[in-house]
Amino acid sequence: MTDVARGFPKAEYEDRLERAHAAMTRDDLDALVVTTPQNVRYFTGFASTFWESPTRPWFVIVPRGGMPWAVIPDIGADGFRAAFVDDIATWPAPQPDDDGISLLQAQLEALPRTSGRIGFELGREMSLRMPVLDFDQLRSDVRGLSFVDASPLIWELRLEKSEREIAAIRRACEIAGDAFEALEPTLAVGQSEHEIARTFRQMLHACGADQVPFLSVCSGAGSYRQIIVGPSERTLETGDVLFIDVGATWEGYFCDFDRNFAFGTPSAAVMRAQETLWQATEAGIAAARPGATTADLFAAMAERIEADGFDSPSTGRLGHGLGLQLTEPPSHMPDHPVVLRPNMVLTIEPGLEIAPGRMLVHEENIVVRDGGAELLTRRAPREMPVVGAG
Amino acid sequence: MTDVARGFPKAEYEDRLERAHAAMTRDDLDALVVTTPQNVRYFTGFASTFWESPTRPWFVIVPRGGMPWAVIPDIGADGFRAAFVDDIATWPAPQPDDDGISLLQAQLEALPRTSGRIGFELGREMSLRMPVLDFDQLRSDVRGLSFVDASPLIWELRLEKSEREIAAIRRACEIAGDAFEALEPTLAVGQSEHEIARTFRQMLHACGADQVPFLSVCSGAGSYRQIIVGPSERTLETGDVLFIDVGATWEGYFCDFDRNFAFGTPSAAVMRAQETLWQATEAGIAAARPGATTADLFAAMAERIEADGFDSPSTGRLGHGLGLQLTEPPSHMPDHPVVLRPNMVLTIEPGLEIAPGRMLVHEENIVVRDGGAELLTRRAPREMPVVGAG
Repeated sequence: MTDVARGFPKAEYEDRLERAHAAMTRDDLDALVVTTPQNVRYFTGFASTFWESPTRPWFVIVPRGGMPWAVIPDIGADGFRAAFVDDIATWPAPQPDDDGISLLQAQLEALPRTSGRIGFELGREMSLRMPVLDFDQLRSDVRGLSFVDASPLIWELRLEKSEREIAAIRRACEIAGDAFEALEPTLAVGQSEHEIARTFRQMLHACGADQVPFLSVCSGAGSYRQIIVGPSERTLETGDVLFIDVGATWEGYFCDFDRNFAFGTPSAAVMRAQETLWQATEAGIAAARPGATTADLFAAMAERIEADGFDSPSTGRLGHGLGLQLTEPPSHMPDHPVVLRPNMVLTIEPGLEIAPGRMLVHEENIVVRDGGAELLTRRAPREMPVVGAG
Repeated sequence: MTDVARGFPKAEYEDRLERAHAAMTRDDLDALVVTTPQNVRYFTGFASTFWESPTRPWFVIVPRGGMPWAVIPDIGADGFRAAFVDDIATWPAPQPDDDGISLLQAQLEALPRTSGRIGFELGREMSLRMPVLDFDQLRSDVRGLSFVDASPLIWELRLEKSEREIAAIRRACEIAGDAFEALEPTLAVGQSEHEIARTFRQMLHACGADQVPFLSVCSGAGSYRQIIVGPSERTLETGDVLFIDVGATWEGYFCDFDRNFAFGTPSAAVMRAQETLWQATEAGIAAARPGATTADLFAAMAERIEADGFDSPSTGRLGHGLGLQLTEPPSHMPDHPVVLRPNMVLTIEPGLEIAPGRMLVHEENIVVRDGGAELLTRRAPREMPVVGAG
């Protein structure tokens, strides 16, 4: 098991802050304001599952050149004391008439001002975690400041992982790998997808997972129709392929990979598709080198899939970034190419249509290194494991 | 265990839709647009953990007088076929230049038009799950429609639960109750909060939980400083009180209640605070009758806490609604009173400051019935369980 301590040292947050300051200077922003669990955690280390309650907004201001400030509900004051912030302003939330908005406005108006530009999480692959009406009011009432999109800047900061982040993702991958190994001998015909999911969740925690925010369990005769809705009450039968895709976390960092299991000896068609996907995964891993692009990654996988006479399924991409979230930029697609750089953590996720409306999907996690891809997952076996005979 | 089938019958969604249509007619809205996991599930039954991926927005339009329509990424098309929608429009997401926005705009512009008012999730205790820039563009480009806040309307629909929803919440409460009973004899001095959390998560799934989105584990000598950050690496010692607050789900519905455990015989001060909170919980349960308000509930608990010479901690309220989310309106506070009605599901959550900056908190879940509160949780024992002596 990867040897990595819980909690990052202050140096990790200092480094993030220093890079944020440089990017803010480049983009002429006086501050960032973040509202979401992952961005608040990225800048301050604050971790909680209380984000599940939608009642109260939370704000962290990262001023250009200064330490982060928290503008948060009273209930979070004590929990924030250990976070990487040098000021905590609180209000007695919930306070429906003014849930932190006038306090946030006052804090923003008190910032040292150069450009008057404040970056919020307004763009791609982000949502603002506060009522839009409050944001509309804030941007209309605030004096002398303009609110602009900081999501490209924030994603840029989060794109290349530190060694500590990579170690946390590797550990999440090892935990899920151990849990898959524990699960395999327990799989049996007659189990429902729900039973399998419950068993697998127990094993994931027994193997060390902190949380399992994402778990997809799907199955069907020889393949499956889709990969995001499930588990269901469907019962596994001989001839089925079981698909399990897991996003488990350790210290906030995700793994995101899948495994396929054949209930009884798979058909020749399934074996052929399996070999194509295993080879496409190899091609994706081999293509993941600094200087190559996400479009190259896509092409390496797609070429293998098409060379074997298959179409890709309608999942829209063949992999993506991962880290504090299950999926992060970039996306491996034919367009919008992103140049790979060392320390990007990526999924390699080829899929194919084995028959109209029926698919198979493989997935591994890697980190891009100077010499090429380093696997974070334990590579899936070339032949689909046969289970459930017992 | 509560006997309740997975998945709600079509009649459940027909009833929700009928009530939505009536509220939309009253508020003169031509449609609702929902973007969040819980509201999409509420109107359509669509359930997935793929919401963890922030990459793609999803939209469901509920037209006044018509069935819901889905406007979703290709990857969701098959999974949505079993949902309560009569039309599914898809686009090949991710498509960063236009991730569903022109498609959503076209669908909205094609709606039968009366008022031209479209309700979105813009207000209290809601966030829009899409980039704000996309929402800004949509409301600027759309022809002849105005976007207004539908969050009060949606919360009103979700406030009183159906018997099927209540059964699902009761089951979640039973599962967590069983898991607490399994956990208690395993608790021992020397365990870390993290170890306890991992053990408890395994037990929750063994007892039947689908997911455990919220789990707070905190501890300290005789009390704790806060209730939302934890588990940590802290190791339990004799004299500690361990606090565990759990939001586990069954079929999408949450329980949300806590339990306290004393490591060794508690001090007289802890015993006294425990008795006050147990009595305050009794008072809260007794006050939860149709016609009473959330302010009455608050007062019933606060009076008991203050009569015993304690202050309430800075958690901002003494309970709230629950259902598809860990916390939902209303909030039990002195102001903004909401009149209780049958079938509201509530937490009763009194807390007190046992010493400056140190708190104890109790919590049970109830459903308001004509005759008064019906407990959904197994009532916590009057005396704090003593554990860890082993």
